[in-house]
Amino acid sequence: MVKRTSFETADCPVARSVDEVGDWWSLLIVRDAFDGSRRFGEFQRSLGVAKNILSARLRALTDNGILEAVPAGAHHEYALTPKGEALFPVIVALRQWGEAFTFAPGEPHSELLDRRDGKPLRPLEIQAADGRPLTPAETEVHKLS
Amino acid sequence: MVKRTSFETADCPVARSVDEVGDWWSLLIVRDAFDGSRRFGEFQRSLGVAKNILSARLRALTDNGILEAVPAGAHHEYALTPKGEALFPVIVALRQWGEAFTFAPGEPHSELLDRRDGKPLRPLEIQAADGRPLTPAETEVHKLS
Repeated sequence: MVKRTSFETADCPVARSVDEVGDWWSLLIVRDAFDGSRRFGEFQRSLGVAKNILSARLRALTDNGILEAVPAGAHHEYALTPKGEALFPVIVALRQWGEAFTFAPGEPHSELLDRRDGKPLRPLEIQAADGRPLTPAETEVHKLS
Repeated sequence: MVKRTSFETADCPVARSVDEVGDWWSLLIVRDAFDGSRRFGEFQRSLGVAKNILSARLRALTDNGILEAVPAGAHHEYALTPKGEALFPVIVALRQWGEAFTFAPGEPHSELLDRRDGKPLRPLEIQAADGRPLTPAETEVHKLS
């Protein structure tokens, strides 16, 4: 990925997440892991990414505890750790935004469905501690002084 | 940013979002816009990013309808469009994951608070259409055949 400032020591959790997840390739690898990909070849076919790029991203995701390498016969597979599973809301948020803003009306796209009833998920809602829906303007970031 | 496959025509909304938002710099610019940054210099001070990189990202975000340039005296400022405001759950999801996994116990970080009561927001929850909480394993992606 393009070299950039490291946000490793930033006091903003958004920046730290950016720093740990790494880049968009890494996020799409995590997406594929949620979709059931486990083998190097599965990720490669899904992403159409060069092997060296994929290898580097898988290593970084493993080093950061987002994926873990699981022995599978002569090779190994990659599985999401609890830390990686916790990225689900990030993936769902990107998906729901993409569904709303990046497709033409009626243009088909993949869907994330509830296995039980086959229905699309409820749109993510930002809520206060007491459950009130909040708009961005109703929130504020308290920075460390 | 690093040149990579365009996901512009992908049938996955996650990939389309990745393609439109562009890169992590762009996402942090959007974060800063939510936090109140409007002027070029404000974004630059916050991100510590080179002017040419910031200019290119601001242009791309404006071209993609995520930011709009608003006249402000001799210059102009950048404001989130409704499409940009809709990225709030993405930012909140990254923030909450970062808070949970990228800080040492007790290590201070900035907080996103409800203006009304000063409390942190409720953690995002993935829910079925009927409101049931869903784990990743309880969902499945229906790909276009």
